[in-house]
Amino acid sequence: MAVVISFENPASAERGLKPLSDIVAPGMARVNSLILEKAGSDVDLIPELAKHLIDSGGKRLRPMLTIAAAEMCGYPGEGHVKLAASVEFMHTATLLHDDVVDESDLRRGKPSARMVWGNQASVLVGDFLLGQAFQMMVEVGSLDALGVLSQAASIIAEGEVMQLTTAQNLATTEDEYLAVIRAKTAALFSAASEVGPIVAGKGAEERAAMRSFGTNLGLAFQLIDDALDYSGKQKQLGKRVGDDLREGKVTMPVLLAYRRGNQDERAFWKRTLVERDVTDEDLDGAISILRRHKAIDDTVERARHYGAIAADALAIFPEGPHRAALLDAVAFCVSRVH
Amino acid sequence: MAVVISFENPASAERGLKPLSDIVAPGMARVNSLILEKAGSDVDLIPELAKHLIDSGGKRLRPMLTIAAAEMCGYPGEGHVKLAASVEFMHTATLLHDDVVDESDLRRGKPSARMVWGNQASVLVGDFLLGQAFQMMVEVGSLDALGVLSQAASIIAEGEVMQLTTAQNLATTEDEYLAVIRAKTAALFSAASEVGPIVAGKGAEERAAMRSFGTNLGLAFQLIDDALDYSGKQKQLGKRVGDDLREGKVTMPVLLAYRRGNQDERAFWKRTLVERDVTDEDLDGAISILRRHKAIDDTVERARHYGAIAADALAIFPEGPHRAALLDAVAFCVSRVH
Repeated sequence: MAVVISFENPASAERGLKPLSDIVAPGMARVNSLILEKAGSDVDLIPELAKHLIDSGGKRLRPMLTIAAAEMCGYPGEGHVKLAASVEFMHTATLLHDDVVDESDLRRGKPSARMVWGNQASVLVGDFLLGQAFQMMVEVGSLDALGVLSQAASIIAEGEVMQLTTAQNLATTEDEYLAVIRAKTAALFSAASEVGPIVAGKGAEERAAMRSFGTNLGLAFQLIDDALDYSGKQKQLGKRVGDDLREGKVTMPVLLAYRRGNQDERAFWKRTLVERDVTDEDLDGAISILRRHKAIDDTVERARHYGAIAADALAIFPEGPHRAALLDAVAFCVSRVH
Repeated sequence: MAVVISFENPASAERGLKPLSDIVAPGMARVNSLILEKAGSDVDLIPELAKHLIDSGGKRLRPMLTIAAAEMCGYPGEGHVKLAASVEFMHTATLLHDDVVDESDLRRGKPSARMVWGNQASVLVGDFLLGQAFQMMVEVGSLDALGVLSQAASIIAEGEVMQLTTAQNLATTEDEYLAVIRAKTAALFSAASEVGPIVAGKGAEERAAMRSFGTNLGLAFQLIDDALDYSGKQKQLGKRVGDDLREGKVTMPVLLAYRRGNQDERAFWKRTLVERDVTDEDLDGAISILRRHKAIDDTVERARHYGAIAADALAIFPEGPHRAALLDAVAFCVSRVH
């Protein structure tokens, strides 16, 4: 297969997220201060729980997209910092509520907030962070940015509800699964990217380009996450390999292997993912079925497809360090599986 | 005690909520259609669960305040309808998350959503409704209204977290308790009222007046709710008498009785509310301790105090059917205990 777009060259993959982190570092320093400030409250439990999340070592990819997109569009102001912090708060609120919904014990290899402070605090601190996010957006004063981000909030929740019904259904089609991750993951990547040109006062073309960039990067990111869960190293993943199997999550590699599999293999997936009768040895069994059907490789192939669309979406922007860094970020998201 | 402000005259109390419901009926019909429309989703579970809540017979007092306040300020447009629907969605989202946090089995005498659809759906549909609420606010296009309502969202969540720590603490002071209900109940009454003058383009004076009206009405409303839980009739209350006792909730009547009580009585409250060792017979015991210390009467007295402030706040608005209906609503909130 000959893929000619630049994001798949080995040099780009090797640079990874570093060019993006470097170029947004001054903006992200202000985002991080703002996050600490806005997570403050006289109610002790709130900053305590928020700090646990803030320190838990996420890459902050989403707010980096907002900063980079705004700067690439020549924005000279400070509004992108508030929007980036809002995006991270929306993401954090989603994680808090997700952990309650999924009954997760770990988050990025550490005990999840709900394990430390209980489900109650996780639900409510998530709501608090969402309120703070909207207040920051209001301070920026762009109704267009507010519209994009509030729509994303609805779509993310819709995606999570969809996932409740698809999560343990092995008959989910590839299209249905894509609709779920488009809503629950890609919608926030898309909104985070689109508010960059919005705050910079750019028009419909730039907005559409960054919306497309974010959506497709988000799809690629989630598919690679799915693949890593059966092929990654714990350190790379920030969670244990095999968590999706243990939690009964039906993801892209499984859907591909289920359709391609024989009766015995289908019985294996039903027992482990639907009946949740799963032991530590089952992870090796799962991986060997996935390999037999090239299900991990083909999931990565799907991710490459979306990565290519994301990279092409950037073509309308002027060449320069921001565009180059965003291209490297696409390469990073797609290549981190290797 | 001679209270001379009009909201406490018996005729006003007897009219109750009817003048308000009548005067906002055309606006509320449009609010109700909008609520049904915006609770729609291709994800079946969402409209199903939302319909359960919408049909569950709340009074819709909060959106009525928005409609009445905007109309009292002479607003001729339709933006107040969207803001009122947003307010009701924020309230509904709070109820959904509250039921999860409180592990409630019933809501207004019916099985709570979490008992029918599970905690997961309740958390996520709450998030969806919050997203829809913010989208409607964005459509109205008033950054001031967005600021007031997003601030309320943060404050409500803060209040709920505060309540986690005070809920079973009998040493909570009256002031601490008031801070909780100011945040968790009065903040939304306040925001619902303030967005009326905002959308009508009124200035700081009218905004401050309606903010004060809403805050104090909300405090009175919550205190009467606390009193009704030990003195109401099931029908009036929409929930079982004694639910607060059964759920271990420390409310104003209990705080008053605890401070005024002897060792045996304090031991009773500790056993029932803190250790949660409570039987059906304990409700009669609780009520007789509360009566001995005039704790219910004095809770109502506190509510009257806030009701009087709410009524006075309306003085700057022109006499007319809207102001009169809002005064009757104060009388209704304070008198429904009798």
